[in-house]
Amino acid sequence: MIVKQLLDAKREGRELSADDIRALIAAYAKGEVPDYQMSAFAMAVCCRGMSAAEIFALTDAMRLSGACLDWSDLDRPSADKHSTGGVGDKLSMIIQPLAAACSLAVPSLTGRGLGHTGGTADKLESIPGYNASLALSDFHRVVAQCGVSMTVQTPEICPADKKLYALRDVTGTVPSIPLIVASILSKKLAEGAGTLVFDVKCGRGAFMQTLDDAKALATALVSGAKAAGRRAAALVTAMDEPLGWKVGNALEIQESIDALKGVDIPVVTELSVEFAALMVALAKDCPIDSARVECRARLADGSAYRCFAEMVRLQGGDLAAFARLKDDPELVVQTVTATCGGFVAEIDARAVAEAALVLGAGRTQLTDEIDPLAGVELLVRRGMVLQPGQPIARLYAKKKATCLPMAAETVMSAISQTETPPAEKPSILAQF
Amino acid sequence: MIVKQLLDAKREGRELSADDIRALIAAYAKGEVPDYQMSAFAMAVCCRGMSAAEIFALTDAMRLSGACLDWSDLDRPSADKHSTGGVGDKLSMIIQPLAAACSLAVPSLTGRGLGHTGGTADKLESIPGYNASLALSDFHRVVAQCGVSMTVQTPEICPADKKLYALRDVTGTVPSIPLIVASILSKKLAEGAGTLVFDVKCGRGAFMQTLDDAKALATALVSGAKAAGRRAAALVTAMDEPLGWKVGNALEIQESIDALKGVDIPVVTELSVEFAALMVALAKDCPIDSARVECRARLADGSAYRCFAEMVRLQGGDLAAFARLKDDPELVVQTVTATCGGFVAEIDARAVAEAALVLGAGRTQLTDEIDPLAGVELLVRRGMVLQPGQPIARLYAKKKATCLPMAAETVMSAISQTETPPAEKPSILAQF
Repeated sequence: MIVKQLLDAKREGRELSADDIRALIAAYAKGEVPDYQMSAFAMAVCCRGMSAAEIFALTDAMRLSGACLDWSDLDRPSADKHSTGGVGDKLSMIIQPLAAACSLAVPSLTGRGLGHTGGTADKLESIPGYNASLALSDFHRVVAQCGVSMTVQTPEICPADKKLYALRDVTGTVPSIPLIVASILSKKLAEGAGTLVFDVKCGRGAFMQTLDDAKALATALVSGAKAAGRRAAALVTAMDEPLGWKVGNALEIQESIDALKGVDIPVVTELSVEFAALMVALAKDCPIDSARVECRARLADGSAYRCFAEMVRLQGGDLAAFARLKDDPELVVQTVTATCGGFVAEIDARAVAEAALVLGAGRTQLTDEIDPLAGVELLVRRGMVLQPGQPIARLYAKKKATCLPMAAETVMSAISQTETPPAEKPSILAQF
Repeated sequence: MIVKQLLDAKREGRELSADDIRALIAAYAKGEVPDYQMSAFAMAVCCRGMSAAEIFALTDAMRLSGACLDWSDLDRPSADKHSTGGVGDKLSMIIQPLAAACSLAVPSLTGRGLGHTGGTADKLESIPGYNASLALSDFHRVVAQCGVSMTVQTPEICPADKKLYALRDVTGTVPSIPLIVASILSKKLAEGAGTLVFDVKCGRGAFMQTLDDAKALATALVSGAKAAGRRAAALVTAMDEPLGWKVGNALEIQESIDALKGVDIPVVTELSVEFAALMVALAKDCPIDSARVECRARLADGSAYRCFAEMVRLQGGDLAAFARLKDDPELVVQTVTATCGGFVAEIDARAVAEAALVLGAGRTQLTDEIDPLAGVELLVRRGMVLQPGQPIARLYAKKKATCLPMAAETVMSAISQTETPPAEKPSILAQF
């Protein structure tokens, strides 16, 4: 493999051989290919694309750069769900324990938040004592004991992806479906679950802004996972408005616990059941309808919540201490009210995320500290009728925070009104 | 300027502002932008192209990264010719002194050879004592004294281009017309000549293989030079077959001296007069016909050769010693003969260059030593009738060279024959 020739070929839009891609990634992981060649490669892929065979070779090469986990010693089928990330997206915290309650093994490596989307690991860490940085052996033990574990990706998994992702982040080479697919899929394949279900978010508050892009990503993820011998499905779901009422780390854990205890949270419960049922149907080879029935039963009988509580306990978390967080004397809550009346036409997910970020719920740099209690609780939904002066949101922040007026203004601007009721919008836009 | 945003914009094919391009190049020259971002930028330009305004800004930014020369103290207009490089391309050695003999000042910064094209500086250095690495002050003095100087680009000229070119060479980002134009033009503009004439070679033995590419490059060079306030023109010339009879460093100097002394060398003399006349007509604002007449007169009366000889003397070269080189007892000459009869249909320039390279006339790496005497002398031209056994070429190499059989085979394969006379081909394919 001569890197310059691969760069020439990709620049001209030619297809690379699987061997060449594997050799390139292996050499890059070992430090034998310099960053300046790899960034040129990434840019060429952004501009020229990749065939399905090339994406598969890239994914596989990145997977093989590190440890590959194995769950075949467990007495149940393994499955995981991955989301491309959205605002208020707490579905993982509900779906993973729910699937475990349906007798699946759910090993789930998650990420931290950056920019406008939150990270599942950050949310879980708002539970006092929760260890979201397990060693791989502990990860395996927790899954074996309670059926589910959620922890951040360890350095052993896909080191080539880690290195390439950091480079893409500073070289304008993030938005490429082949590179995104290889990055997501290499980690999920290394994680080792036999069934993979993907939630590809689409809209204003998502990475994929158009339905075409979201469908292309969903198709590529599913076909890539199947090519690697996994059972796989994907739903493209709407991410124009925040998911559920709450956006923020502890706020989203609260809402997840509510859903796990059987409270029907609009869209959140519907999508959680849908994704968990897909996992169950694929992993157990059963009809989707009976899988849905099973999932609803596991929410109703409290077993999904018990799986969650047991996972939290095994990872060191204290749910009683978590329940007392809302009494923190440092916490201030400010209510935002409507200035005029009408129908809620849109709630701009990105603007709500911006407000939560300003309040301290997220990071603009990876080294930023997060305030676990900060965030936004919406009191209205799309289609609701508003009266002037009606409370529309609550803002949560540290007492000393100077950001409340700015956050209030951002939330106000996020909610647009009309005189006529807005048309219904589906939550699920496509399925693969 | 935020580099990541520029990369995003160029990846999406958007036009960058002149200020952003200037800031990028200035920061890169200072080492503030890392190679891995610059290589991604170069790849994005390869894939997405650049507008004329962007090319101009890039050119200007690279020009301003180093010294810009000034010839306004001389009592004559300044002009230079640049060639994109071909096989047997010795035109610079004829045109520059010829233009000087027509009362122009000709400051000519040239390059070294790499791969299949030779470098003018390497050719001149086959003259014993010739210093092709003048300081800028000596460069100025030689031009002032005899009207012409030819030396390699010094580190003071366009350091940003030097740095970017080295990076492009290892990142598959060489073949991009915007990047090629900016690289050529920034150096030529920094060189400071008021008139610039470009020889864009097109064909098998050239960098530009198609007429469309060559025309695009020629147009971009001329419009870029004009936008920078210079008088400019370009000819696209054929480079399917070697230029003249001889390919090799000392061999090409011999042929250049013949042409400068008034010997009519097919194509070589015609193109030399054409380019020198273009320089004269543009620089002196006179009709091209009278400029052609003047150029032919300067070849006939020996004044063009005298300018060359004076330049060589001022740069330390010894033409008497050069004339004795052919008597070197280490030199072997082998004649290649035709195996069958017919018309010479094609002489593949690239294959002849390959043979010359094998004989020791060129470099495959920049650190390779050149044998100044090595090369190929063709004894036939396109359209000539061959008899079996007729000598078709002479190969020159060091006695100990083991490469003669391979070079002979390559030259044989370069010359294709037909039973009917091949159609005439023009030397000049387009003019801008």
